Amino acid sequence: GKLWGGRFEESVTDAVEKFSESISFDKALYKHDIMGSRAHATMLAKQGLMTSSDRDCIVQGLDEIERQIEAGEFVWRTDREDVHMNIEAALTDLVGEPAKKLHTARSRNDQVVTDLRLWCRDAITEILDRIKRLQVALVCLAIKNEGLIVPGYTHLQRAQPVLLQHLLLAYVEQLERDSSRFINCKDRLNFCPLGACALAGTGLPIDRFMTAKALGFTAPMRNSIDAVSDRDFVLEFLSANSIAAVHLSRLGEEWVLWASEEFGFLIPSDAVSTGSSIMPQKKNPDPMELVRGKSARVVGDLVTLLVLCKGLPQAYNRDLQEDKEPLFDSVKTIIGMLEVTTEFAQNITFNSERIGRALPAGHLDATTLADYLVKKGIPFRTSHDIVGRSVALCLSKGCQLLELSLDDLRSISPVFEEDVYEFLGVENSVKKFSSYGSTGSKCVAGQLCFWISKLGINGDKKQ
Amino acid sequence: GKLWGGRFEESVTDAVEKFSESISFDKALYKHDIMGSRAHATMLAKQGLMTSSDRDCIVQGLDEIERQIEAGEFVWRTDREDVHMNIEAALTDLVGEPAKKLHTARSRNDQVVTDLRLWCRDAITEILDRIKRLQVALVCLAIKNEGLIVPGYTHLQRAQPVLLQHLLLAYVEQLERDSSRFINCKDRLNFCPLGACALAGTGLPIDRFMTAKALGFTAPMRNSIDAVSDRDFVLEFLSANSIAAVHLSRLGEEWVLWASEEFGFLIPSDAVSTGSSIMPQKKNPDPMELVRGKSARVVGDLVTLLVLCKGLPQAYNRDLQEDKEPLFDSVKTIIGMLEVTTEFAQNITFNSERIGRALPAGHLDATTLADYLVKKGIPFRTSHDIVGRSVALCLSKGCQLLELSLDDLRSISPVFEEDVYEFLGVENSVKKFSSYGSTGSKCVAGQLCFWISKLGINGDKKQ
Amino acid sequence: GKLWGGRFEESVTDAVEKFSESISFDKALYKHDIMGSRAHATMLAKQGLMTSSDRDCIVQGLDEIERQIEAGEFVWRTDREDVHMNIEAALTDLVGEPAKKLHTARSRNDQVVTDLRLWCRDAITEILDRIKRLQVALVCLAIKNEGLIVPGYTHLQRAQPVLLQHLLLAYVEQLERDSSRFINCKDRLNFCPLGACALAGTGLPIDRFMTAKALGFTAPMRNSIDAVSDRDFVLEFLSANSIAAVHLSRLGEEWVLWASEEFGFLIPSDAVSTGSSIMPQKKNPDPMELVRGKSARVVGDLVTLLVLCKGLPQAYNRDLQEDKEPLFDSVKTIIGMLEVTTEFAQNITFNSERIGRALPAGHLDATTLADYLVKKGIPFRTSHDIVGRSVALCLSKGCQLLELSLDDLRSISPVFEEDVYEFLGVENSVKKFSSYGSTGSKCVAGQLCFWISKLGINGDKKQ
Amino acid sequence: GKLWGGRFEESVTDAVEKFSESISFDKALYKHDIMGSRAHATMLAKQGLMTSSDRDCIVQGLDEIERQIEAGEFVWRTDREDVHMNIEAALTDLVGEPAKKLHTARSRNDQVVTDLRLWCRDAITEILDRIKRLQVALVCLAIKNEGLIVPGYTHLQRAQPVLLQHLLLAYVEQLERDSSRFINCKDRLNFCPLGACALAGTGLPIDRFMTAKALGFTAPMRNSIDAVSDRDFVLEFLSANSIAAVHLSRLGEEWVLWASEEFGFLIPSDAVSTGSSIMPQKKNPDPMELVRGKSARVVGDLVTLLVLCKGLPQAYNRDLQEDKEPLFDSVKTIIGMLEVTTEFAQNITFNSERIGRALPAGHLDATTLADYLVKKGIPFRTSHDIVGRSVALCLSKGCQLLELSLDDLRSISPVFEEDVYEFLGVENSVKKFSSYGSTGSKCVAGQLCFWISKLGINGDKKQ
Repeated sequence: GKLWGGRFEESVTDAVEKFSESISFDKALYKHDIMGSRAHATMLAKQGLMTSSDRDCIVQGLDEIERQIEAGEFVWRTDREDVHMNIEAALTDLVGEPAKKLHTARSRNDQVVTDLRLWCRDAITEILDRIKRLQVALVCLAIKNEGLIVPGYTHLQRAQPVLLQHLLLAYVEQLERDSSRFINCKDRLNFCPLGACALAGTGLPIDRFMTAKALGFTAPMRNSIDAVSDRDFVLEFLSANSIAAVHLSRLGEEWVLWASEEFGFLIPSDAVSTGSSIMPQKKNPDPMELVRGKSARVVGDLVTLLVLCKGLPQAYNRDLQEDKEPLFDSVKTIIGMLEVTTEFAQNITFNSERIGRALPAGHLDATTLADYLVKKGIPFRTSHDIVGRSVALCLSKGCQLLELSLDDLRSISPVFEEDVYEFLGVENSVKKFSSYGSTGSKCVAGQLCFWISKLGINGDKKQ
Repeated sequence: GKLWGGRFEESVTDAVEKFSESISFDKALYKHDIMGSRAHATMLAKQGLMTSSDRDCIVQGLDEIERQIEAGEFVWRTDREDVHMNIEAALTDLVGEPAKKLHTARSRNDQVVTDLRLWCRDAITEILDRIKRLQVALVCLAIKNEGLIVPGYTHLQRAQPVLLQHLLLAYVEQLERDSSRFINCKDRLNFCPLGACALAGTGLPIDRFMTAKALGFTAPMRNSIDAVSDRDFVLEFLSANSIAAVHLSRLGEEWVLWASEEFGFLIPSDAVSTGSSIMPQKKNPDPMELVRGKSARVVGDLVTLLVLCKGLPQAYNRDLQEDKEPLFDSVKTIIGMLEVTTEFAQNITFNSERIGRALPAGHLDATTLADYLVKKGIPFRTSHDIVGRSVALCLSKGCQLLELSLDDLRSISPVFEEDVYEFLGVENSVKKFSSYGSTGSKCVAGQLCFWISKLGINGDKKQ
Repeated sequence: GKLWGGRFEESVTDAVEKFSESISFDKALYKHDIMGSRAHATMLAKQGLMTSSDRDCIVQGLDEIERQIEAGEFVWRTDREDVHMNIEAALTDLVGEPAKKLHTARSRNDQVVTDLRLWCRDAITEILDRIKRLQVALVCLAIKNEGLIVPGYTHLQRAQPVLLQHLLLAYVEQLERDSSRFINCKDRLNFCPLGACALAGTGLPIDRFMTAKALGFTAPMRNSIDAVSDRDFVLEFLSANSIAAVHLSRLGEEWVLWASEEFGFLIPSDAVSTGSSIMPQKKNPDPMELVRGKSARVVGDLVTLLVLCKGLPQAYNRDLQEDKEPLFDSVKTIIGMLEVTTEFAQNITFNSERIGRALPAGHLDATTLADYLVKKGIPFRTSHDIVGRSVALCLSKGCQLLELSLDDLRSISPVFEEDVYEFLGVENSVKKFSSYGSTGSKCVAGQLCFWISKLGINGDKKQ
Repeated sequence: GKLWGGRFEESVTDAVEKFSESISFDKALYKHDIMGSRAHATMLAKQGLMTSSDRDCIVQGLDEIERQIEAGEFVWRTDREDVHMNIEAALTDLVGEPAKKLHTARSRNDQVVTDLRLWCRDAITEILDRIKRLQVALVCLAIKNEGLIVPGYTHLQRAQPVLLQHLLLAYVEQLERDSSRFINCKDRLNFCPLGACALAGTGLPIDRFMTAKALGFTAPMRNSIDAVSDRDFVLEFLSANSIAAVHLSRLGEEWVLWASEEFGFLIPSDAVSTGSSIMPQKKNPDPMELVRGKSARVVGDLVTLLVLCKGLPQAYNRDLQEDKEPLFDSVKTIIGMLEVTTEFAQNITFNSERIGRALPAGHLDATTLADYLVKKGIPFRTSHDIVGRSVALCLSKGCQLLELSLDDLRSISPVFEEDVYEFLGVENSVKKFSSYGSTGSKCVAGQLCFWISKLGINGDKKQ
């Protein structure tokens, strides 16, 4: 029978039991559930709510259960509903009477949310580690490709030449903000709900500061109703995952594009490509397609949680059981996305020959030419117009700006002088960039040093 | 090695393999994959693309594999990627050479979408059955509660008295529209992509009309690129699920409210309630809370698919592998929601005594009074004002409209006469409703007959 | 004062009034609100609930109000809350006493949802028209580009050669399914809620069949509670919009790619391009970027409605006021997306020269070669392997399959004979496709005829 | 003509212009656009890129334009596309030649994102203020209702008695976490993109630190590509809005429930209620229904942004124009929700008489009784069982726990003694709670002091 069975005369139907069970997924919380129970029993003993011998029985019993679970020997029972009841019932089977004291001054309502916060804290630590690895991989890729100029795009149209390093560091920056969002989220969720009990606290002389400290929480939560009923920490976590996933989807899109025959800028190694069951010549950048695609489920998981919590009155409602699967799925997915993107970054080569051939197209030096004119004292809007007409001339002649003669240029504006050729061509163009944060070689080298140092990349990794 | 391994010199990394595999979930398609392969082999043999002995080998091999899967003897291998490759490779292990001819004029691109359409068709059939069962349960509940008047709400404020039957039939109507959406969806998706191959069709002399017919499809799809790349049928299916889930969430909310101490209108039996681990007196309507909550994941699954498909160019992209888990989850969830709601409906009692006591509050007969005045020739806006003042008088006296004396009423308007009392009180009020579709007893009885006949409910079920 | 002011002693605060008002957006319903009131008044008169002279006053008053609105002379007042109250109050100002009878046997609850269904019906008609125009534009584009072969992609990797016509018709197919979804939606929503009143119907002798017919509805809705409280028709409409928007986002992505320097397959005319404020050489396919981007708000609008309706108890809740803005925004957006895509399609040129140069890359004829081997009796899996090795040989030699000598081919398999060259090269490859729905020239020509006839495109348009 | 018109020979079609324009909504950025231009011009002059007299012309021109806009005299022109071009073109009209120098070393790409970050910073400041006001209103409400005990719910079933103050402070806690999320978001977005230009920076000698400082940013952004292409700050902002909106939707739901006839715990004043057009007795808590409902659009806006950004390659894409409307809508909505909830809180009375009458129902003291048994040394699981049987006895007798005789109790367990009656009844029950964060009177009083001090509420406000 269920542990809450007291006044119930009839057991629930099979369909209801199957629909309501959570053990198939919430067993993932076992480690944190046991951790919480250890701390709780220790506190209860300290406060005189159980004997130290009861506590020892309980702690040893929990150790044994944890061992069994990790050894795959533990039998999870659906009729015991959830991870909390499974472990408590198994403890009772194992140590008998003392186990009945463990749930003193505790409810599943505060227990589950304590487990969940502990689980999230660990998950964020893991995500932070994966983000850093990806940042390192991107910086290493930048180091390997020093000096490589690629087209910079807006509207997927070629716009200006940029150093590949600069582009890769843009992603490193975005990942850094992702990290800082996760850190904020972790700090904010690291408060302890244990002791809030069902919703109102307890009249028993517990010490919530003791359990909070034992579990590594900053402090106990201040309000018991808030403690058991809110899931904003999950919403925030899934939001941070979603934003990171969108970042990765953009990198995925970019690398899928670059791996196409048409771009031809990027060659994945066989270790990160797959083939076709019917088209033997295919070599597909599947991992990055999946990274792009899996961003969708991370967003879907966030939406699930938002819809779930919308309009629920205080305090705990059974709906909240549904917070776990989207959370677990989101975390598993984002970790996979980060890992696979890291591996992909470690297994690609930029095709500098193809890129080099492609660079002349697209008049990437046009804005550098406008800067030239501004430096000569022409107001920007006028410069812009002159460059526009110069490009139009190129289009009609089928040539590059660099290939226009000085006479051609002077036919558009008398301001052009011989020194204009120092501003034309992508190499010259990149050299001219000088503003802080720009793609100019010196600026980018400085940024690269910053990241090498910040990420603690040593000489070996650079190889 | 992978079946597409020809030109590949290196195998993918473990992380990529784990991230890319789909066998852990797409094995759910095994039955439809085998069905498709049987039809395909039969067609290939008919068209002279394999011998009839090859076909027989293949069909018998497929039968054996299906048997193994259903007996739990089949070993799914992650290194064989997906359900298609697992079955084809197992077939090769089993029957040798002939199996190599099965993938003639077929690609995983058309194969997977054929499987998926077949799977959806069956899933919809199952959902339609579950919807009907719930409609029957609601109608039976209506039959059981003949004559019971309950408050009708707007803004969760009491508005007008309605027959409980009328309220229950409102849900039956909504479910009927859900059914019709699912039927449209099924009809629209029931076209056969098989033979579209990778994306362009084939030069081999296949007969797509034959396979389409064998698999119960209306016709083959007209355009091979469309056939392999679009997933609008999944989007439509998940939309229909979401709308149905929102309907059920509303019923969930209503019944959770009604089961509260404050309403006290509805008593679930123990078979569909759960208790508390700390509060022994609790009896929670958990199934309906979960029905309300699980609507969230159905919506989340839809969002996942929409985000997934957004901005993908033609034709097949690996991202589309991610279409399956949200689809499977959504279908599993909606079926569970329908089943559990049905069981809940079969296991509740309406507390007519509590409801009866509650009815006088809320001036539910006010609009009937306004109708009375209109019948006396007072313009509606004036009637509305008179009734407003009558209610104000009740509020100041702390009484019901029924309890105002004729003098009280006449002090507000001289139009009131003795016959006004035939319009006051909830029983009178319900009796007066007469418009088509209204809560008037005769109208509701008519509607109930309509549904009993439409749903084929016989006398036995009514008990 | 508010029309519901009877028992209210204090008016709402400014912040509440501003937060609650809907007139700023629901005035869009004016035409359908007036249409509904005309039908309602006519029915009331027929049923003896007002005199025919009252009816004439009302109908003439409504005509005048409609004229004023369309002439921009009507003053919408926030203190009159919404479109219904604004029009009714203006009518009272205009015609006096008879106006007070208009709201007989009607509530804003049934009135607003009647307006909304009428509005949706018209909106769908408009969308259907826009879809057809886009289909026509795509078919005309196909007609103009007869015979043009382009690479077909999977995973954005070149896969097989396809006729551009075939690719364009894939979109036409998708739009056709969109149309059919909209038609289903329109048919399902075309039932009349008028007469459901607040939620329970009325005791006055109205004729709901008469108003339903006058307003072009199929029939009155059967259940008054359902009639006022459900918004599934909006959810279904927004789902259909979202699916169509996702289709368009995919076309947007494809055309943005194709307009890039790297692809270079598509040249938009100046009429559908924009430039850069700083990079004068840029010519951006902005309309298709916006089509891709605006799909997001259509999805967001759907999510808004789903979240809105989730968990609301019966019947009308004020939350439902929020159904309108997402609906209006979604419809406006999808219509804009369809129109602009149509204009874009009418203003692009495919760069057959660039495409022609690009075709040899990517071994697009590999599967045709596999078909050749199958025709020679080689099992498909073996053929696939032979072709894989042939492509590997090409990669090592830096050549195309067409450029391998017969000796080269025979070194891989002795099956190759001189006739293999009839299967190599993209032109040969396309010719060989013959299955129904394939990209083979004859198949595509047949499909094109089908669509020309179905869409009623005449000779003139083809020019 | 457009400012980017140089090489364009044809202007865009009307439909494209209408579809592409952003001036109808991005004019909301005018103040921040002008602020940015002032800082930019000042920097350009300091760096010798324009004369100080040019700068003065520009700054004075901008002042005049700002004045005109705020006076409603400025004419926004759709043919000038967006807020940036409108202001720059108006400046040119106003001051001539010098205006042409303003766009030096700037692009709309960095300009718009600078405006947007400034706008978000201000919006967050405003939201933080509104959150604090609501917290103050809730704390004042708590002060006014000292000592009022209400039922605490789980599963919407009565669980334990809580002080109303405790419940109100739970919301204050949630709002405090919302604030801290907004503060993190503001800090993270407060970096300056200006000078990133189109995407690559510039070769002109600008000083990005100077403009960053002048505009109150922490520092310039480190990477120009990242600066123009990422919108993670908007995603984070809309996530924070969504979480806050979900919090408010829960309060909305609760207060709508409490205002129902069935609960009857809460009476809104007329200033925050509305009536019905047909049911004169209705008094609806519409503002809180709308608060609940409008949470949906805040969630929808977030989804829009997530879908928008998904899969976009670097750097700026026109899709990003669509970031503004969801942002503006979300901010406007959340501010309205906060304001109206504050007003509602200021205009409600808790019906202590109704609440008092309702309290005995639901066995709210059951867990206190279990605590009593634990204190007597009974293991919790056994206590829970004893209490379960006690409640069952009450149910069979139709009485409260308090009404059981000692004999009754002893028939269940001999442990019960006379002192048990100090633990029964809701007043005793609330008194017994003592754990940190619990609903015990002393704990709650402490928490209330904490918030009064933290929010700076003085004696006056308490009235």
